[in-house]
Amino acid sequence: MATLKLPSTVPSPSEDCEQLRKAFAGWGTNEDLIIQILAHRNGAQRKKIQETYSETYGEDLLKDLDSELSSDFQRAVLLWTLEPAERDAYLVNEATKKLTASNWVIMEVACTRSSDQLLCARKAYHAKYKKSLEEDIAHHTSGDFRKLLVPLVSAFRYEGDEVNMSLAKSEAKTFHQKICDKAYNDDEVIRILATRSKPQLNATFNHYNDQFGNAITKDLKADPEDEYLKLLRSIIKCLTVPEKYYEKVLRLAINKLGTDEKALTRVVVTRAEVDLQRIAEEYQRRNSVPLERAVAGDTSGDYEKMLLALMGHGDA
Amino acid sequence: MATLKLPSTVPSPSEDCEQLRKAFAGWGTNEDLIIQILAHRNGAQRKKIQETYSETYGEDLLKDLDSELSSDFQRAVLLWTLEPAERDAYLVNEATKKLTASNWVIMEVACTRSSDQLLCARKAYHAKYKKSLEEDIAHHTSGDFRKLLVPLVSAFRYEGDEVNMSLAKSEAKTFHQKICDKAYNDDEVIRILATRSKPQLNATFNHYNDQFGNAITKDLKADPEDEYLKLLRSIIKCLTVPEKYYEKVLRLAINKLGTDEKALTRVVVTRAEVDLQRIAEEYQRRNSVPLERAVAGDTSGDYEKMLLALMGHGDA
Repeated sequence: MATLKLPSTVPSPSEDCEQLRKAFAGWGTNEDLIIQILAHRNGAQRKKIQETYSETYGEDLLKDLDSELSSDFQRAVLLWTLEPAERDAYLVNEATKKLTASNWVIMEVACTRSSDQLLCARKAYHAKYKKSLEEDIAHHTSGDFRKLLVPLVSAFRYEGDEVNMSLAKSEAKTFHQKICDKAYNDDEVIRILATRSKPQLNATFNHYNDQFGNAITKDLKADPEDEYLKLLRSIIKCLTVPEKYYEKVLRLAINKLGTDEKALTRVVVTRAEVDLQRIAEEYQRRNSVPLERAVAGDTSGDYEKMLLALMGHGDA
Repeated sequence: MATLKLPSTVPSPSEDCEQLRKAFAGWGTNEDLIIQILAHRNGAQRKKIQETYSETYGEDLLKDLDSELSSDFQRAVLLWTLEPAERDAYLVNEATKKLTASNWVIMEVACTRSSDQLLCARKAYHAKYKKSLEEDIAHHTSGDFRKLLVPLVSAFRYEGDEVNMSLAKSEAKTFHQKICDKAYNDDEVIRILATRSKPQLNATFNHYNDQFGNAITKDLKADPEDEYLKLLRSIIKCLTVPEKYYEKVLRLAINKLGTDEKALTRVVVTRAEVDLQRIAEEYQRRNSVPLERAVAGDTSGDYEKMLLALMGHGDA
C-alpha cells in the first residue's frame, strides 16, 4: 500500500532528463517541475533517470540537485531520488556520525526492511563507504545498544511463513522470565529478537500476551523514560506492526514544538513506495486528522509540495 | 590453487548421467566409474549433472548415491557432489546437532569463506531448513561460544583492499590491553574480529606483532587447553592464513590414533576447488611428507581413491 502515484504514461528517461535540465537552467530553479517529475517515478524509473542523466550530460543528477536546491526540500528530494538500498546505507552512515547519531534510524533499517533489502543496504554500504555497515555501527555504538544493534543489522532472517508453536511458547516463557528478572539486555532476549523470523516472533509475542496477560511491550515499560527499553519496544513494533511504529514517529515529529523535519522526511521518503498508505490510515485513526492535513499544516513551500506529492496528493 | 583436475574434454551432462546410471545398475556398484566422473567435475558441472539426472530419470542423484554407497566413501562423495553453498549449510546444520556439535566447523564456514559465499550458505540454509543459519547457531550454542560465533556467521565483511592504518594501530592496542587483562571474551575483541575486513585485520595483527613483540596468537596461548582460546586462535588463523589452519586440521586428523575421517573428508571436499594445493604445500613443509602420501597411508579402498582424485592425483 504505497502512496506513490505514477502518471498513466510515464515519459522516457531522456525526456525526464531533458525536463530536469530545463528546471535547473538559467537564473532560479523550477522546483515544481522537479517535483512533478521525480515525485512521480518509482525506484527503477529514478535509477534509469540517474543513469541517463549521467550518460547524456556527463554529470551526476544528485550533485546537480544538491547544488540547485536547499534545506528541507533539498534533503527530501535527494533522499527520495536515491535507490532504496543506497538511501538506507546513507541513513545508517549518517546515524553513526557523532552529530547525527541515532540508534533509532539504525534500528528502523534493521527491523523494517526485508532480509534481501537489508542485505542490499549492506552491499551498498560496502560500495559507497569501503567498509561494512556493521563495523561502523559496532565502532560507533557501545554497551547495551551495541549489543542489540549489531546483531539486528547483521540478521538475515528466514522469510517463510512456517511457525514453530512449541518454540514460540518456550521463547515467550524466556521473555517473561527475563522481564521478571529485569534482565532486559540478557543474551537470550537479544538472540531471539535478532535471529527469529518475523512470523515466528509474532507468534511468540501473541503467546506472551495470551499466557501472561499483558502485551510484551507493556511489560517492557518498567521505566518509560529508559532509552534502552524504548528501543526494545520499538524493535518489537517494527518487527511486527511497522505501521504503528511509523505512525508514532510521525505523530511525535509533527506535534513537536518546531516540526522534526528530519524524521518527517525520513518516514515519507522511505515508506512512500512501501506502506505509507497503511501508516496514514493508522495516523488518522490515532489522531483524528488526516496525515496529509497534519503535514500540510506543519510544513510549507516546496518542501510541503514534495511531501504531499509523495503522499499521493493531487495528480501524477 | 585448487587441486581439482578436469579432463581435457568434459563429457556432456547427459553422457555423465548415463555413465552414473550404469555405475549404479545391476548387482554391485561401479565405484571407480563414480569417482572417475564426479571427482573430475567442478561445481557448476556437478550442478548441471544433478539437474540433468533429475530431469532424465525423475530421481535425485544424491539419494541414489546415498543408497548405492556406504561409510566414509559415501560421505565424501555426497559432500563433494553438493553445491558449495548447500554443503556449507549442511555442515553447519550438522554442527548444531547435539551428537555432531562442532564450534570448529561453524567457525571455519564463517571465517574462511568470502562474504558472498557465506551469504550464499545462509540463503541455502533458508531454502533447506526453513530457518536462518544464525538462529540455529544461536539456539544451540551458549555462553562465550555463542557470543563469538553468532556475529562471525552474520558478518558480511567488506572485501576491498583498503586498510586504515591508524585504525589498525588503535585496534592492535585494544587487543593488547584486553589480552593483558585476560578479557578474551570482551565485546571489543569480538566486535573487531567479527566486523573488520580481512586485510584490515591482517594489518592489525601485523601491527600487534611489531608493537608488542609477539604474534597475537602466541599471546592468546595463556592456557593452551582452554577451548575458547583455541577457537580464538583458529579464528585469527582462518581469517589471515587459512592454509595454515587447514594444514593443522589435516595433521591432527591424520596423526590421530584412528584417523579422523570426518575432518579429513571435510577439508578435502571443501578446499579441493579452492586452495588445497597451498594447504598441501604447507603440509609438506610442516610434516616433511607429501600430503598425498600421508592420506594414502591412512585411508584405503574407494575412500582413499576418492580423496586422492580430489587431491589431483593421477589423470582426470
